[in-house]
Amino acid sequence: MGFAPRLNKFFGWGSPGDAVSADERALLNSLVRHRFGISADPAPPASAGSVPLDAPRAQPPGPLADVITSDRPDRLAHAWGKSFPDLARAFGGRADHAPDLVAYPRDETDVVDILDWAAGAEVAVIPYGGGSSVVGGVTPDVGDAYSATVSLDLQRLDRVLEVDSVSMAARAQAGVLGPHLAEQLQPHGLALRHYPQSYRYSTLGGWIATRAGGHFATGPTHIDDFVESLRIVSPTGTWQTRRLPASGAGPDPNRLVLGSEGALGVITESWVRLQRRPRFRSGRTVRFDSLESAVAAVRAISQAELQPANLRLLDRVEAQNSLAGDGTHELLVVGFESADHDVEPLLLRAVECCRDHGGAVSPARGGDRPQAADTWRNAFMRMPYFRDVLVQYGVISETFETAVTWDRFTELHAGVTTAVAAALADEGLDPATVSCRFTHVYPDGVAPYFTVIAKGTPGCLDEQWWTVKRAASEAIEAAGGTITHHHSVGRDHMAWYQRERPSLFAAALTGARRELDPRGVMNPGVLIPAVGRST
Amino acid sequence: MGFAPRLNKFFGWGSPGDAVSADERALLNSLVRHRFGISADPAPPASAGSVPLDAPRAQPPGPLADVITSDRPDRLAHAWGKSFPDLARAFGGRADHAPDLVAYPRDETDVVDILDWAAGAEVAVIPYGGGSSVVGGVTPDVGDAYSATVSLDLQRLDRVLEVDSVSMAARAQAGVLGPHLAEQLQPHGLALRHYPQSYRYSTLGGWIATRAGGHFATGPTHIDDFVESLRIVSPTGTWQTRRLPASGAGPDPNRLVLGSEGALGVITESWVRLQRRPRFRSGRTVRFDSLESAVAAVRAISQAELQPANLRLLDRVEAQNSLAGDGTHELLVVGFESADHDVEPLLLRAVECCRDHGGAVSPARGGDRPQAADTWRNAFMRMPYFRDVLVQYGVISETFETAVTWDRFTELHAGVTTAVAAALADEGLDPATVSCRFTHVYPDGVAPYFTVIAKGTPGCLDEQWWTVKRAASEAIEAAGGTITHHHSVGRDHMAWYQRERPSLFAAALTGARRELDPRGVMNPGVLIPAVGRST
Repeated sequence: MGFAPRLNKFFGWGSPGDAVSADERALLNSLVRHRFGISADPAPPASAGSVPLDAPRAQPPGPLADVITSDRPDRLAHAWGKSFPDLARAFGGRADHAPDLVAYPRDETDVVDILDWAAGAEVAVIPYGGGSSVVGGVTPDVGDAYSATVSLDLQRLDRVLEVDSVSMAARAQAGVLGPHLAEQLQPHGLALRHYPQSYRYSTLGGWIATRAGGHFATGPTHIDDFVESLRIVSPTGTWQTRRLPASGAGPDPNRLVLGSEGALGVITESWVRLQRRPRFRSGRTVRFDSLESAVAAVRAISQAELQPANLRLLDRVEAQNSLAGDGTHELLVVGFESADHDVEPLLLRAVECCRDHGGAVSPARGGDRPQAADTWRNAFMRMPYFRDVLVQYGVISETFETAVTWDRFTELHAGVTTAVAAALADEGLDPATVSCRFTHVYPDGVAPYFTVIAKGTPGCLDEQWWTVKRAASEAIEAAGGTITHHHSVGRDHMAWYQRERPSLFAAALTGARRELDPRGVMNPGVLIPAVGRST
Repeated sequence: MGFAPRLNKFFGWGSPGDAVSADERALLNSLVRHRFGISADPAPPASAGSVPLDAPRAQPPGPLADVITSDRPDRLAHAWGKSFPDLARAFGGRADHAPDLVAYPRDETDVVDILDWAAGAEVAVIPYGGGSSVVGGVTPDVGDAYSATVSLDLQRLDRVLEVDSVSMAARAQAGVLGPHLAEQLQPHGLALRHYPQSYRYSTLGGWIATRAGGHFATGPTHIDDFVESLRIVSPTGTWQTRRLPASGAGPDPNRLVLGSEGALGVITESWVRLQRRPRFRSGRTVRFDSLESAVAAVRAISQAELQPANLRLLDRVEAQNSLAGDGTHELLVVGFESADHDVEPLLLRAVECCRDHGGAVSPARGGDRPQAADTWRNAFMRMPYFRDVLVQYGVISETFETAVTWDRFTELHAGVTTAVAAALADEGLDPATVSCRFTHVYPDGVAPYFTVIAKGTPGCLDEQWWTVKRAASEAIEAAGGTITHHHSVGRDHMAWYQRERPSLFAAALTGARRELDPRGVMNPGVLIPAVGRST
């Protein structure tokens, strides 16, 4: 193939060079000993060399031999995404759904050629950006109706092609990773400022395909807000939307592609809206005696339309687990930023809302960010690596998330925590903690994010997690939440997604897909159930 | 039928009781004399009784006789929307495309029954909210492939069904007019705060179907921002989306319906996000010596993310025509509002941006809104009535609008004004004024709104307007603008819409529509070209 791709680890988060520090390891070791009563040494993951792999069912077609490979390391690296069950299976040396082939298109023409070949050969195509899906979105698990599978890795489409500093927008290729995009925009004094937790290992195209949520709690933070236009290769052709700040001409074509998860084609480019880097920041940490009063304060701030960049509510368990609190109080980190103007007046008003609801506000620090915010942010970005260590002790550590209107939050929170506690008990997963934080807040509702950490049974971790996940998903559904606020549907959420979306919308989407991908080769089983062979 | 419907005027804006005041009439009289050199008295419009109308091609089906009529006044009132050509034709006593029947469903069951009957009888269904379309969206001009047409008027579905004051949202029926919706929400201290110019004569369902733009210049103002969920009756069934503050589960189903313009079904209900009424307001008027410097100030304010409610730039001609200026300067009205906090600091920063670009800022007034803002707002709301008077003098008065990224604004503005001036000259439309204002502003671009007022040739006004409109639309297209930012596509914009949207998106939309309306009876010719009879 004449190209050395960047490969994700087969087991664990990130690139082969990434690792936890000695300090982090000691901390995690102490956590599992004292909180989970585990004294055994961590078990080593299976070596990549020991993973059994079936022979590929297809070979790279001659004309595409430069960009498609059937090499074992490439197939292994593209076998899973990064959900906890993926991690547990990789830890155990399994690669049940490794693709037969991996493609690394050099440009859009290669993408077109690969889709042409795949549609003709009835090969299922799984678009692959950073590979960080936590919902089975990049797992080549497509059933028996296809002759083979190809993971289509867009890492070579990684350039910023144009910057319009008048309109503050840029045209970038879909395969660019978060940091590399930032690096290319930096000389222009601009940035996308879209920071999902997967930032280092997720791509612009992946964010668009999955409707990713950024790090900010309110205001423009979803990738949906930043897409000005996009370009997509479908099996029936290549199309692109017009670059516009807004339009009222029919249903928005961008919104059909946003969230399409590879089922309608491969996103190759997008014009995205940019921002200047913030120069003004103000923030505080607030302690609350109960979740109820903290929630009331958060709702008041949101409904006052103050639009803080940060409005991170951690329940007492979450605060303790991330070392930002001592487990006796809920913590709220509230912060504002602007590239243009002082935001202290907004912060003071937000602080007033907190006091109205009994919040104890931290004194202002010299710096612009409160201490708890730094502590929490660091833990947040390192979390995926910590999970890799915990699984070696047999500890399950995984998250799930939803969104719900305010009127139903209390019921949803109670329903989910009760259902998860029952599932943990049924499975004998003990000790365990269930915690909740808010990732995004809206005037009409909230996106709660739950974390479960539990001592599991080595060898059974993925099935055990699934028992908990199913219970949580049923409880979310019952309380009227969405099955995903920003993790997307993938393969793991399909059952609940099919209940959540109107069946006539499913029919309409299937009708749309038939025009774009008549043979149904695009990411089969995601959004639309996989279809059989056409012949 | 046993129900006395509210009927729009056949000629002119609004209800039969609405009229211009004596003062307004005197002012308009003076305008046409001094600016357009017209000394003749206004000609009276044709009387409704004199309008020739073909016999209806269908009669109300027996089981639906309570809710469908073929009465002449109902057919006349539903023959057109409110574009200038509609007005000119009605003035001349024409009703070329009056529907054969008009339906007034009492509830959703009636809507289902009407669609069932229409699909079976190959009757084209034209959903009708307030009837204020300015793009032919409610004109029953569907070609020869249907046995008849029925205008489906939703005025009886006009209630607020539920208010959730915790989440600040309400469930309302789609046929409710702007003021009636406000009236029902007022006791709860809440409001939608979506104010298109058509506010008094447009409906919630119409806003959703056309992706209406509200009155505010930045921030949440499009109806798209306010829709939490919706309910729609398609010929193949009724569906509704889940009430959620946000979701990442696949492409957003609401966004398929937003902008669907009746082509996918009839919107019957929606949960919408509400706001509290503002208590704090700050605003100023700023004069600029050139459009260029005014545009630079507007862009600076928008890119500073200050989010003013009002950021209305009027070029010197527009300022003079609306009596807010003397024709020697561009005027910018900038204003902030909040239900929660003082907005003066934001105003001061916006004023600073204006001064940076040479703006002369008006002194603060005692009141909270600047004088020019009041003058302009009044003219804005009364404008549709003024047009009714002007047409009687043979004066064409119409608007068109677009949106474009900042980098292309200068080119678009020059292209459009040049093309329109040439078309006006070719048609001998003299005197004439062409003016521009900004209706909505985004960090990456702007929605310019053009007004043409010209002395035309009585009897030829609609054709003359179309010559100008075509020239403008071609110039917009050439400069990369959208054919509509908030007036929607209707029948009038179809040619340019088909060039603007990607053809594969058109195929996808047609595929989706096939699942929802296999016989193609829903608003044929809008968004999707009309199809032939299925038998």
